[in-house]
This record gives sequence, C-alpha cells and structure tokens, in this order.
Amino acid sequence: MAEPIRHDKTARQLRLLSDALDSGRLGPVRRLVNTLSPAEIGNLLESLPPGKRTVVWGLVDPEDDGEVLVHVGDEVREGLIADMDQDELVAAASDLDIDDLADLVEDLPDTVIDEVLKSMDRENRERLEQVLSYDEDSAGRLMNPDVVTVRADTTIDVVLRYLRLRGELPDHTDHLYVVSKRHQYLGRIALQALLTHEAGTPINQLLDDEQPAIDVNESSSEVARQFSDHDWISAPVVDDNNILLGRITIDDVVDIIREQAEHQVLSAAGLDEDEDLFSPVWRAMRRRLVWLSINLCTAFLAASVVGQFAATIDKLVALAVLMPIVAGMGGNAGTQVLALMVRGLALGQVGASNIKPLLWKEARVALLNGLVLGAVLGLIVLAWFHSVGLSLVIFVALTCNLVLAAVAGVLVPVTLKRAGYDPALASSIFLTTVTDVMGFFTFLGLATVVLLR
Amino acid sequence: MAEPIRHDKTARQLRLLSDALDSGRLGPVRRLVNTLSPAEIGNLLESLPPGKRTVVWGLVDPEDDGEVLVHVGDEVREGLIADMDQDELVAAASDLDIDDLADLVEDLPDTVIDEVLKSMDRENRERLEQVLSYDEDSAGRLMNPDVVTVRADTTIDVVLRYLRLRGELPDHTDHLYVVSKRHQYLGRIALQALLTHEAGTPINQLLDDEQPAIDVNESSSEVARQFSDHDWISAPVVDDNNILLGRITIDDVVDIIREQAEHQVLSAAGLDEDEDLFSPVWRAMRRRLVWLSINLCTAFLAASVVGQFAATIDKLVALAVLMPIVAGMGGNAGTQVLALMVRGLALGQVGASNIKPLLWKEARVALLNGLVLGAVLGLIVLAWFHSVGLSLVIFVALTCNLVLAAVAGVLVPVTLKRAGYDPALASSIFLTTVTDVMGFFTFLGLATVVLLR
Repeated sequence: MAEPIRHDKTARQLRLLSDALDSGRLGPVRRLVNTLSPAEIGNLLESLPPGKRTVVWGLVDPEDDGEVLVHVGDEVREGLIADMDQDELVAAASDLDIDDLADLVEDLPDTVIDEVLKSMDRENRERLEQVLSYDEDSAGRLMNPDVVTVRADTTIDVVLRYLRLRGELPDHTDHLYVVSKRHQYLGRIALQALLTHEAGTPINQLLDDEQPAIDVNESSSEVARQFSDHDWISAPVVDDNNILLGRITIDDVVDIIREQAEHQVLSAAGLDEDEDLFSPVWRAMRRRLVWLSINLCTAFLAASVVGQFAATIDKLVALAVLMPIVAGMGGNAGTQVLALMVRGLALGQVGASNIKPLLWKEARVALLNGLVLGAVLGLIVLAWFHSVGLSLVIFVALTCNLVLAAVAGVLVPVTLKRAGYDPALASSIFLTTVTDVMGFFTFLGLATVVLLR
Repeated sequence: MAEPIRHDKTARQLRLLSDALDSGRLGPVRRLVNTLSPAEIGNLLESLPPGKRTVVWGLVDPEDDGEVLVHVGDEVREGLIADMDQDELVAAASDLDIDDLADLVEDLPDTVIDEVLKSMDRENRERLEQVLSYDEDSAGRLMNPDVVTVRADTTIDVVLRYLRLRGELPDHTDHLYVVSKRHQYLGRIALQALLTHEAGTPINQLLDDEQPAIDVNESSSEVARQFSDHDWISAPVVDDNNILLGRITIDDVVDIIREQAEHQVLSAAGLDEDEDLFSPVWRAMRRRLVWLSINLCTAFLAASVVGQFAATIDKLVALAVLMPIVAGMGGNAGTQVLALMVRGLALGQVGASNIKPLLWKEARVALLNGLVLGAVLGLIVLAWFHSVGLSLVIFVALTCNLVLAAVAGVLVPVTLKRAGYDPALASSIFLTTVTDVMGFFTFLGLATVVLLR
C-alpha cells in the first residue's frame, strides 16, 4: 500500500524556520530559506500565516522570486505579488522561461507586463504572445517555444559542431527535433544516439518518427496521460499543419498531475486547489458559505421527508433515535462506490460500455452487505427496544438503502460527467441527498405501514 | 481551475474495443490492443469485467506481457497472473528491467521465480537480490542498478569512444555518473555537456556535484518530493558509504505520485488504491464490510445520544425533524476543513508551528458561517413551526456545531498523524462521529433546557 506523501523534511524545515522567526533573528532565516529550491520555498511560504509569510518573502533571494511565484497557488501568489514593488516584479518576470512567464502573466499588473514586454527582444515577445493565444488548459500553454532543431540531410559530426557552437541546450533536452525546410516536424534524435554512434552517421538513420507529436490544442490532462502512459521526458508540440511550435517537458507535467490530485481531494468538499491555507477569514467564509448553503437546502429536503412522518414519530419515538443510522449508513456505503467511480472516470476506465456490469456488481455487493449489516442492526434493535416489528422494519430499510446508495454511487457521477459537470465536485452532495431522503423515507414509511396499521 | 484528468481517448478506445468484443471478431480487437502502450493496455484491462478481461489479455502481444503486469493494480495483476501458464510468466518476467522485475516478483509463483533466476546471469541475479533486500517503499526498490559510470581523470573524447563501444544507454539516461576507484559517487555529467563542449575538455571540468545523491533507505514519498521540487529527470542512489548503487528515473516517480493521489481519494472512503473496479463480489463485500461495521458502531454512538433525549422528542416531534440538519451541516463544514488539512499534511505544510493560527482562522470562519447560516435556519424554523424558542435553540446549536466541526477538522487529522496513523484514511470517521454526537447533543440538550423547563 502506498503511503501518503509525507514531507517530513519540509515539516522539519518549517519548524526550524518558525523557531528562527520567533526568535526575531532574520539572518538564520535568510540563510535557511536560500538553501531551498524555488518549489520548496513556495511550499514553505504557503504554510506560513500572513505576517510571517511577508517577512520570509522579503528574505528570498530576488533571483528566485519569479520561480517561487510560479510554484505557489493562485491565491498565495496574489498576496506575494501585492507585497512587491514594480521593479521587483519586472526583475522577477524577466528571469523566467516563456512557458512559466505565460503562467504568471495574468496575475501581474498591466504596468509590469508592459515593462516586461519592453525588456524582451522581438523573438521572445512574439513567442510569449503565441503561447498566451492558446487555452489555459491546453498543450499550447504548457509548451516552451525554445527548441533545438536539426535537418535530416546531415551527419552526427555536423550536428555536434553546431551544438558546440550553440553552447548550452534548454533544460531537460533529451532529444533534438528534426524538421523540414518549412519547419514541419519529421521526428526526433535522442542525445544518446548522437553519443553512441560514429561521427559520420547520417542523421536520417537515427531518426525516430514513432513518437507522435502533441497537437497544440490538446487538453493538458490528455498531455499528462500521454506522458505518464509512454514514459516521456519531453514531447514536440505541432499545429494543424504539423509545424513544430515548441516542446513540453515532464517537470511541467508532474505539476499538472499534482494539481489534478489536489483538485480531486479538495473539490469533493467544494473547495478549490488554489485555496490558501491561510486565506483571509472573510474570503474563506464567503467561499465556504456557497457550499454550505447548498447543503442546507438538501438538508431541508431530507428534513421535510421526516416532517411527513411526524405523526408516526410522535407515536413511536424510537424511530427518531434509529433513523439517523439508516440514513448515515447509506451515505457511507454510497461514498465508497462513489470514490471508486470518481477514480475510474478520471482514468477513463468507466464509460457507457461497462456501466451495466459495474452497476450489477455494486448492487450485489450492497445487497450482501445490506443483509449482513441489516441483520446485525435488527438484532441490536430487538435487544434494545424489544420489538420484532421495529427490528424487521430497520432490517429491510437498511438493506434497501444500501442498494439504493450503490446505484446512486454508480449513476450520479456518470450522469454528472455526461452532463458536462465535474463528477469530483458535485457528486457527494447529490449522493448524500439521495441516501438521506431515501433512508428516512424507506425507514419511516415502512414503520408507518407495518407498525402503525 | 484544473480540470480533473479526462481520458476521453481511453474512453473512446474502450468503447471501440467493447463493440469489437461484443461482435465476437477477435482480429480487430487484437489489432486495436497492440497499437497501445503497455500502460494503456493495463488501464484498458482494469476497465473490463472479468470475462472480457481474460479474452483481451490472451490477445496481448507476449512481448508486452511483463510491462502490462507492472502497470496494473495488485488485485488485477493477481487475476492476470492466474490466467498465464508457467512458460508465459517466465518469458514475461525475463523481459523486464531489474526495478520492474523486483516490483513484480512477489506476486509470481515460486516455481516461476526459480526459473527466472536460473535464466539470469550472475550479475543481474545479484542485482535483483540487492534491490529486493530494501523496503518496499524505499529508494532501494525504485532504483535500477543499470547505470553508466565514468572516471573523473579523463576527457570527453575518451568518454565518447567508450559510449560508442558500449552502444545503447539505459532509458532516460540524461547524466553519466562519475565515481571514484572504490565506486563512490562524486558527481554527474550531463549528456548535454558532452555534446556542447570540445572533445579535449577534461571530465572533471564538467562535473556537477551540486545535486545530492539519494540515500538508498529514503522513503519513496520523500524521493517523489525531491524529484518534483527539483525538476529532476534521474538521480543517483547511494548507500551509507556513498557507494553508487543505482539510479531512479522520473517515470517511476510519476507512478508514485499517481498512486499517492489515488490513495488519498480512495482511503477517505476506507478503500485501497489497489482495489479492482471489478473485484469479485465476495471479496469486495468483505472489504467494505469492515469499514461499514466501524461506521455502524459510530452511528450507534450518535443514536444513543438521541436516545438520551427520547422524552424531549416525545414532547416536541419537531426536534426529530430538525436534528439531522444540525448534525449534517456540522459534518459538511468539518469535511471542508478536513480536506484542506489532509492536503496540508500531505505537502508537509501543516505542523506544530502553525496549528494555533490555523485553528484560530478556521474557528473564526466557522463562527461567521454559523452565525449567518444559523440565522437563516432560525428564520425558516420560525416560519415553519412558529416557535421563537425552537428558532433560537437551532440558531445557537448550529453555530456551536459548526465551530466544533472546524476545531475537530483541524485537530483530528493532526492528532491521527502524530499517533502514526494515516490521516487520509481514518479522519472522516472520527470527524463525523464528533459532528453527529455534538450536533445531536447541543440541539436536543439545549431544547430540553430551554423549551421543556
């Protein structure tokens, strides 16, 4: 079983830093912070309450400012940007690669963007504009236009001479791309191949044209899937005419995979992955209020079902004691099915072709569990309230509610997805509404019919 | 906002495949399956019900068998292995890299392991035994012992001659490692550097000794953090004496990050990330029964609180109608705090040093939401039941329960983690027990004191 990510080192750094901050000596804090990578500094800043966050942010080496901003959530980023003056922002933005800058640019004040654009050469300005013209969640926004291309009609020694002249290659370059005269993507050459073949080998003998290029409009989640299914380090990005536009590297894909994981965990509670741990109270409150208000409405729906049976409860108060058990167990059983389905939908493993066998499997699992747990519950109720009728009613009601919960657990996320909604976000509200309403209805309804004839 | 991973291509392939299977013509199925990468085939197999899964597994190109087995969850893997005869298993295992073989070996029958070991040369057998001697969740199990090393006292042209003699490099080789005579790790040389510098350049001029090597006993989650915080493609693994043992590559790290993400989503519902979507009914039932039984016990705890107030409910049935609202809203509000905390703990952002400000922030957010929602709820209750007393009681009870839920949402996961338990797994049960028990207690208790004096 995989352990959850346990960042004990980060927690240790956080404690050290916090002690140093509390002692008021900023020298050690500065030294400590600047031994960290920008991603680690970002993580650390996110874990600090607002006051300390501002202090530590002021101590970060200005050279790292840009990279740190790229690595924090939107909400934290906003706060950090607000703490910087224009010159600092321009300097931070100017240090970044085009793809990172594109990620940041929307959060920067217009005056800063103007300054940054002015400081860039024409080629880079055009590249940035091109990257920004694509959808936020597309391959076009993830790509870096800085690629090394070679022509097919040459040999290794010519390429090596060119590379030595060129000097440093972009980060994470594992392949050179081979393009036609019109800059169409033809295939790639592994750096490895250049090193392990004789200098006279023609490039087109080493050409690997098996890896398909990524379409610039492909969604970022599909890009992430392809990288992880094919173990890519980098991949070329092309337009509709197969013109090479840039390349995507695994480090950005890892960030996407992390974000998607956080999204799944947080959206089940109606939250956003960009939520700051230390959001201002008013902002956090307003955001949660929306979710809780929806929950209040669905709670009323369930309460109104109970209200229909007020006369029954009035005659047999044991029903009020037991009804939360029936509703709650349905909710828990349904949540299990839901978790499996949300994962399956996220991995593309659940679709029209296997809903029926899934539904059938889950209904049988729920029926068996319902019979076992219903029998246990029935026996306990018999011992507690000495009523065979009540015991039978809760047995049947629990069994029915577990089966219904399983059916809802399968169908709710699938239906939401088909309707274009995010199943990770809205499923749990719908599911618990179903299990509460049906739990109260079957239990109190059966009791009314069976016990109060 | 990041979209959840939407694998529409996978879903489309699944539909195509399913149609082809239903039509009974296996030729097109075979062709379709064998255009996919092993990871994609694994994903597809996981999405198929048992019967179809067996058919498709039989059509997979035997060359891919080993890689496919590495890419599926433990439970699915068990089933696939059961479908293979000994020769097939030996062939599949023999195709694998050492690190992948180590991952698979525990699921293979002993006779197969013997055959595989016999078919290996001594060097590889020793390497496998070494990898298997490390903890399952450690760097030692993730590493591949197949590394290319060079000595510092040489020049680029010597290294290039050696590489051309050697031929192909291991997958994802972006650096060569420089070792001492005693095989101690000294640093690394980027392939890029070999290509962009003159042939006569001494290797020790290109040596990068800044990236720390990974300790072989480091946990896999810490390895994942380091890769993602430092944008590494590969990293050297050393023992306590700094002897180079192997290297870890980003593709295995991506798999860990995915597993951890699945673990967080599924363990919140008491499930395991290795659970098969199509587990046999009996197995799935037994596993879920454990979780639901724990939930049944906590539900009884909440019911017994309600039972204490049976006399009060008997006099005022409206309490039975309204009590699930107070308890349920507490559960929802607490779940929001919990989700933020579980993420924060997973990222190492929450620790002793910031619990107090977090608690203070969440308590204030909850108090504000409690006052707003409590007032709304109070007014609705006033209109519904025409009782000022009842309206005031529910206002106070909801506000109290939301604040308590926030406190529990912060403290429960932190306490569980400190006690050595996985906060993603057990927190939600504890939390909803608190919010149910306290919700019923404050609401019914207040009602008893205020309304039935």
